[in-house]
Amino acid sequence: MEQPRLHIIGVLHGDITRLEDAPKYYDESQRVGTLEIFPQYQEGLEGIAAGQTIVVLFWLHQAARDVLKVYPRGDRSRGLRGVFATRSPVRPNPIALSELTVLAVHGNRVEVSGLDILDGTPIVDIKKKVGT
Amino acid sequence: MEQPRLHIIGVLHGDITRLEDAPKYYDESQRVGTLEIFPQYQEGLEGIAAGQTIVVLFWLHQAARDVLKVYPRGDRSRGLRGVFATRSPVRPNPIALSELTVLAVHGNRVEVSGLDILDGTPIVDIKKKVGT
Repeated sequence: MEQPRLHIIGVLHGDITRLEDAPKYYDESQRVGTLEIFPQYQEGLEGIAAGQTIVVLFWLHQAARDVLKVYPRGDRSRGLRGVFATRSPVRPNPIALSELTVLAVHGNRVEVSGLDILDGTPIVDIKKKVGT
Repeated sequence: MEQPRLHIIGVLHGDITRLEDAPKYYDESQRVGTLEIFPQYQEGLEGIAAGQTIVVLFWLHQAARDVLKVYPRGDRSRGLRGVFATRSPVRPNPIALSELTVLAVHGNRVEVSGLDILDGTPIVDIKKKVGT
């Protein structure tokens, strides 16, 4: 089938500007930031409220797409592993998946905590967390 | 920025062929099936083994992309909600997210259980589950 095109629905504003400053996993992070959802998609936010956990899909536009084996978490002692057995940002479709806590919603801006993603990263989806 | 193109890395083979037969959520499903990963991506599977839980991202190629409000789980009594506050398949980028149990890996084929996805659905990513 044809390669589908993603629609970028928004952009992340945060304080992580260098890869080496990013926490390795969202579950180890308390970093806060704002999901700016573009006005044409704002209607899709209705029902999201402070206190909820949301699942956010980011498009890691700087990540390599042609790598299939990596050292997990940069640890060479454990050998190379297939990217699909890891959460490396490097993969054929560099989509990152974060569970974030909603701190507040103001119009098309969603304040969140738990970020491990670089400032300026495009957003492609937001979902309710299963079981919430 | 430009709209990124997804690379389809494989296809699901399962026994759910009609939307009305699909379980609503993967966590309510025991359905089994096979992730066929295309040979050029098979190397990326190294390290995935039976018993693990993996996170699989599917591209719901039949889902509408121009809808921003839905009735959650088809229940009209609770009113319309923004798609980003739900797990509806309908959304600007119809990427589904399933946590599946690996039953076996044979070359480029991964047998899984927990499916709520239609037979023939394209696969775009596989990740390790956080904390596993």
